[in-house]
Amino acid sequence: MKKRIAILPGDGIGPEVCESATQVLTEIGRLYNHEFEFVYGDLGGVAIDKTGSPLPEETLSICKQSDAVLLGAVGGPKWETLPGHQRPEQGLLGLRKQLELFANLRPVTIYDSLAEASPLKNEVIEGVDLLILRELTGGIYFGEPRERRGEGEQETAVDTLVYSRSEIERIVRKGFEFAKERRGQLTSVDKANVLESSRLWREIVDEVAGDYPEVSYSHMLVDNAAMQLIRNPRQFDVMVTENMFGDILSDEASMITGSLGMLPSASMSQDGPGLFEPIHGSAPDIAGKGIANPLATLSSLTMMLTFAFKMPNEAAALQDAIDDVLEKGYRTADLTSDSSKALSTVEMTAKVIEAL
Amino acid sequence: MKKRIAILPGDGIGPEVCESATQVLTEIGRLYNHEFEFVYGDLGGVAIDKTGSPLPEETLSICKQSDAVLLGAVGGPKWETLPGHQRPEQGLLGLRKQLELFANLRPVTIYDSLAEASPLKNEVIEGVDLLILRELTGGIYFGEPRERRGEGEQETAVDTLVYSRSEIERIVRKGFEFAKERRGQLTSVDKANVLESSRLWREIVDEVAGDYPEVSYSHMLVDNAAMQLIRNPRQFDVMVTENMFGDILSDEASMITGSLGMLPSASMSQDGPGLFEPIHGSAPDIAGKGIANPLATLSSLTMMLTFAFKMPNEAAALQDAIDDVLEKGYRTADLTSDSSKALSTVEMTAKVIEAL
Ligand SMILES: CC(C)[C@H](C(=O)O)[C@@H](O)C(=O)O
Ligand SMILES: CC(C)[C@H](C(=O)O)[C@@H](O)C(=O)O
Repeated sequence: MKKRIAILPGDGIGPEVCESATQVLTEIGRLYNHEFEFVYGDLGGVAIDKTGSPLPEETLSICKQSDAVLLGAVGGPKWETLPGHQRPEQGLLGLRKQLELFANLRPVTIYDSLAEASPLKNEVIEGVDLLILRELTGGIYFGEPRERRGEGEQETAVDTLVYSRSEIERIVRKGFEFAKERRGQLTSVDKANVLESSRLWREIVDEVAGDYPEVSYSHMLVDNAAMQLIRNPRQFDVMVTENMFGDILSDEASMITGSLGMLPSASMSQDGPGLFEPIHGSAPDIAGKGIANPLATLSSLTMMLTFAFKMPNEAAALQDAIDDVLEKGYRTADLTSDSSKALSTVEMTAKVIEAL
Repeated sequence: MKKRIAILPGDGIGPEVCESATQVLTEIGRLYNHEFEFVYGDLGGVAIDKTGSPLPEETLSICKQSDAVLLGAVGGPKWETLPGHQRPEQGLLGLRKQLELFANLRPVTIYDSLAEASPLKNEVIEGVDLLILRELTGGIYFGEPRERRGEGEQETAVDTLVYSRSEIERIVRKGFEFAKERRGQLTSVDKANVLESSRLWREIVDEVAGDYPEVSYSHMLVDNAAMQLIRNPRQFDVMVTENMFGDILSDEASMITGSLGMLPSASMSQDGPGLFEPIHGSAPDIAGKGIANPLATLSSLTMMLTFAFKMPNEAAALQDAIDDVLEKGYRTADLTSDSSKALSTVEMTAKVIEAL
């Protein structure tokens, strides 16, 4: 097959991990007889530096004309003093909105060989395999009005959390779909004892549930979910929630593994190109040193192969290769305390290609 | 001294733990020559059953005429099908607003003798001693409009997150005050890369900081805070944040200890009576069995003695008594897997009184 992939390296270690990803994809293309074409675009700080905008028109059109988008990372201290709407993150938020990437998938699984790295006890995390599904284009991230009002002591700042029935329904439906293909269990997280939007959310979950009799579902308050994720993460299969709760809970859940450098994510629309990215940030402290861990980005590629390209065999082969290098004991600097044994980004990439 | 305390037993195990608290307070009064007068009021489900309202006028006036309020717990399955504004929780939210309890204190400390119960590794939680200060009367909990709009697919639900400069300033100032009296370190948690209200929050923190040169402070995004609380909770001294973030993060932080049955809280106003309550809920599954752990409620009394009554010696004596019974190995059912050794609420209370 022929696939066109928009590569947005972004800032910090973004270019290094994206370089790793294109090499691995090229190898997969060679092995499985696909043609992967890469088209590059700027996003975030690097885009601000070149064009003044964190999301240039050209980048957007490159993405729209692709079958999938791979993003490195955006942001860094250099751009932190810019006014809010000119920050690198705005590029990412704009891209989510423009591509209508309403469904953010954040799987959390434990690599046995890395379980030690978790701050949680081994018996708590053993066998954890959960998927957080976060609504990504609505809620308080985009609601209007969002503004300052009044002056002096009376000055107020306002944000608006708003959801429409259709916005809630499409993400909730995705939640049931994923649960159906997994272990058949969906937890919908809200704050229905306080928020009007959560009460609508809960209503819709109860309605949509009728179409999925094979899925057993429940409601959980967000404060309780924040506890349960640590107390007993194994109780969860798929968790579906709104944008801001998803932001907080998915980052919390990522800590269950203790290895941020390993975790992928995918953001999908109804039928346009999806966006795939590692969940770690731009890590400005190690940028340019060639020591970044590429595995979260490669793991994001397995999601691209699965969801965007419907290439389950290729995805499985890549996941096996990642498991393989870890079991053989290969580690990047973030995964080992013995720095003399740490592989560079390039070396780790080579090991994965070898394992393929 | 003479002090009048409003006791709101509430629902579930609330009456049992409040009974324990009044016995212990009476003993402290005897030992230290204070007169503690108890006035009882209804709140939550029990109030709905008796009066139709989760916060009857009489309860409010009892609280306003007291020097402090002790709350057991509110809520239970019996009232969960009632419409939103008639639920037991509304009684609690109303009380917070009416008494202007804008500062919610949630200390998290580890009892060495219970460290085993934590889902986190011992080396992660050793020596944790943090205070989460949550804004409790503003933000999205109370902002207007909060409503449904439109119909059918177009139906939307709206909540409003609003903060005024003065609301932010008073809680932030409390944060700096507490940090100053503790280890001099304040972490302000927001989502300034997305929310207008967080940008105002951050501005005010930077301004107020000028008055506290002895406190070192920093800003942290809420998603990162949710990670850092698990990754390395020892890095925090005082954390100050807005209402909803505080709800989520304080419950997450409570899991660090693994012993919900141990954690107290205090909610304070500028100069009216404060409200003190265990953070565990009404636990309907064990209500009426006489096996509830009273220690979180007794620990809330130490906060009452400290903050409401300025009785540091009495507070220290009570805390020592709690430490003492734990070190001697006394446990309620929630704290031990050996149920034959579990003390009842009454027995545990007697042990604490003995230790006093
Ligand atoms: C950078 C920021 C705006 C973003 C978010 O809050 O969505 C990030 O935290 C994420 O989760 O991708
Ligand atoms: C019962 C509920 C409204 C309340 C809240 O969200 O504030 C509770 O979770 C708490 O933290 O005291």
